[in-house]
Amino acid sequence: TTKMKIFALNSNQELAEEIAKEVGLPLGKSSVTHFSDGEIQINIEESIRGYDVFIVQSTSQPVNENLMELLIMIDAVKRASARTVNVVMPYYGYARQDRKARSREPITAKLVANLLETAGATRVIALDLHAPQIQGFFDILIDHLLAVPLISDYFLKESGIDLANVIVVSPDHGGVTRARKMADRLKAPIAIIDKRRPRPNVAEVMNIVGNVEGKTAIIIDDIIDTAGTISIAASALIESGAKEVYACCTHPVLSGPAVQRINDSVIKELIVTNSIALPEEKRSPKIKQLSVAKLLAETIVRVHEQKSVSTLFD
Amino acid sequence: TTKMKIFALNSNQELAEEIAKEVGLPLGKSSVTHFSDGEIQINIEESIRGYDVFIVQSTSQPVNENLMELLIMIDAVKRASARTVNVVMPYYGYARQDRKARSREPITAKLVANLLETAGATRVIALDLHAPQIQGFFDILIDHLLAVPLISDYFLKESGIDLANVIVVSPDHGGVTRARKMADRLKAPIAIIDKRRPRPNVAEVMNIVGNVEGKTAIIIDDIIDTAGTISIAASALIESGAKEVYACCTHPVLSGPAVQRINDSVIKELIVTNSIALPEEKRSPKIKQLSVAKLLAETIVRVHEQKSVSTLFD
Ligand SMILES: Nc1ncnc2c1ncn2[C@@H]1O[C@H](COP(=O)(O)O)[C@@H](O)[C@H]1O
Ligand SMILES: Nc1ncnc2c1ncn2[C@@H]1O[C@H](COP(=O)(O)O)[C@@H](O)[C@H]1O
Repeated sequence: TTKMKIFALNSNQELAEEIAKEVGLPLGKSSVTHFSDGEIQINIEESIRGYDVFIVQSTSQPVNENLMELLIMIDAVKRASARTVNVVMPYYGYARQDRKARSREPITAKLVANLLETAGATRVIALDLHAPQIQGFFDILIDHLLAVPLISDYFLKESGIDLANVIVVSPDHGGVTRARKMADRLKAPIAIIDKRRPRPNVAEVMNIVGNVEGKTAIIIDDIIDTAGTISIAASALIESGAKEVYACCTHPVLSGPAVQRINDSVIKELIVTNSIALPEEKRSPKIKQLSVAKLLAETIVRVHEQKSVSTLFD
Repeated sequence: TTKMKIFALNSNQELAEEIAKEVGLPLGKSSVTHFSDGEIQINIEESIRGYDVFIVQSTSQPVNENLMELLIMIDAVKRASARTVNVVMPYYGYARQDRKARSREPITAKLVANLLETAGATRVIALDLHAPQIQGFFDILIDHLLAVPLISDYFLKESGIDLANVIVVSPDHGGVTRARKMADRLKAPIAIIDKRRPRPNVAEVMNIVGNVEGKTAIIIDDIIDTAGTISIAASALIESGAKEVYACCTHPVLSGPAVQRINDSVIKELIVTNSIALPEEKRSPKIKQLSVAKLLAETIVRVHEQKSVSTLFD
């Protein structure tokens, strides 16, 4: 009776299955294969005429493959007479190219928004966009969810750390709002790492604004990519007298040497979400993954029932 | 003084260099690299303000990578205040997904057209589109060049075969117009291979319409992909009495077992263009590549000078 269907693509099948289970529906049947020359072939294997369709895809590595898969799927869903084409993008690739930092650079985050609209998306559900301004890149509806509540709950209820002794640390100026939100939930103070390069071609200096002495420091970021900054930041916190350092982020990009760096760092535990699936080789006893399936499932149901999702936003 | 610039991307650097040389300009300076997580980073390294910019890129394998590179480059060129953004696509990937053959399929060739327009392309220069109707997928200007004259000239002037004894063969019904064009140039008759499957799950039968006995058969197609059909067609022609078989096509996709199949086939020589670059492992003494650089260079110059290019069309 309920006219809605959730489809998974290849970036994050496990999360899509979890979401479908939470919603109480089987995943929609579709096949995504490749022709001999590498072109993507998509087939939707059941009727979706008049349905609210939700496509779950993170544009994580391999980003261009995953993005094209998503665009082609949107086209197929649109042409199959779906009522609405909702894109659930737990991780929005290219989000860091959100402005011209230098002359003659592209603004790929805006290009991606335009491509999604052109393909036929009618609504996007995103999680912790690198810059909240990316919402304004869309003319279609966009819901912007945050992982801070989920991550904070882990520290409040499961971590077993002494909450009276915590300080939340933003690894840069851009992340202070996020750190503030988490600190409010943990009823903790904040510190900020103030990076600067004294002269060109000289190593950055990490100056810690705030007193971390004797504290359990929790660094929070949106993306951890090569984990260079976060590892150095953790060391700087220990050098400034922090008792121990936890790190957390929404999106575990973890490219290149990231996992090795985390393992070798002074970081006690890294808490991430499953917005990006971690293949076997990116797992580590130090890395704990929390699931955003419930949050996304609830959002999907509310969108389908035309209820407000804004209460889920923080 | 001449306000135009040609940029190469990664699919076909060699062809782009040849084109630039024909035009008499150095290639524009740009860098296309990848961040650690696989995202594409593009930088245009010289001013193009007010210029007619030509971007040379075939969306051949890896198609999704090459397409995203192209879209991001278009975005960068547009934002760098180019006067026009002309996309030179010797090979147009996804062209075979140009219609819904079954329910709930995407029409990816149309999606690609929309993506190019959305990114900011103002004109597209294409070569032997799989279906000429793809021109109508664009609302921007599109020039549609043909390789038949170039390939015919090879047979007329360089091949050394007895032109009085040639028959041009279309490997399917869809290619008859192309075969006819070539036959006119070679002043030769045509034959058509009429494939049909007597019952489901039974091998196709290749019925040759036309008399090939004692003839030098030249099969012409737009794309040779896995080379399955063309190899079988060549054998069928020999079985029907053809003296020898040549094959030619515009776009050497040559995926999977293609080169091996060509080498093992009765085909004497395969003539292709460089619309798609052939990496070392796809080269063979049997495969001859003709260059479309002159044709594309002349088109580019005429577009820049706002002259008609229609006389180049056949
Ligand atoms: N995939 C990527 N990996 C690493 N750096 C990136 C990536 N995409 C964009 N950037 C750069 O990251 C910077 C933006 O990061 P932020 O200052 O944290 O917003 C810009 O200088 C971008 O050039
Ligand atoms: N990259 C590809 N490789 C092989 N077949 C394809 C590819 N793209 C589309 N097709 C199929 O090729 C058929 C169209 O070819 P044609 O009939 O020659 O126009 C359709 O059935 C498509 O599903």
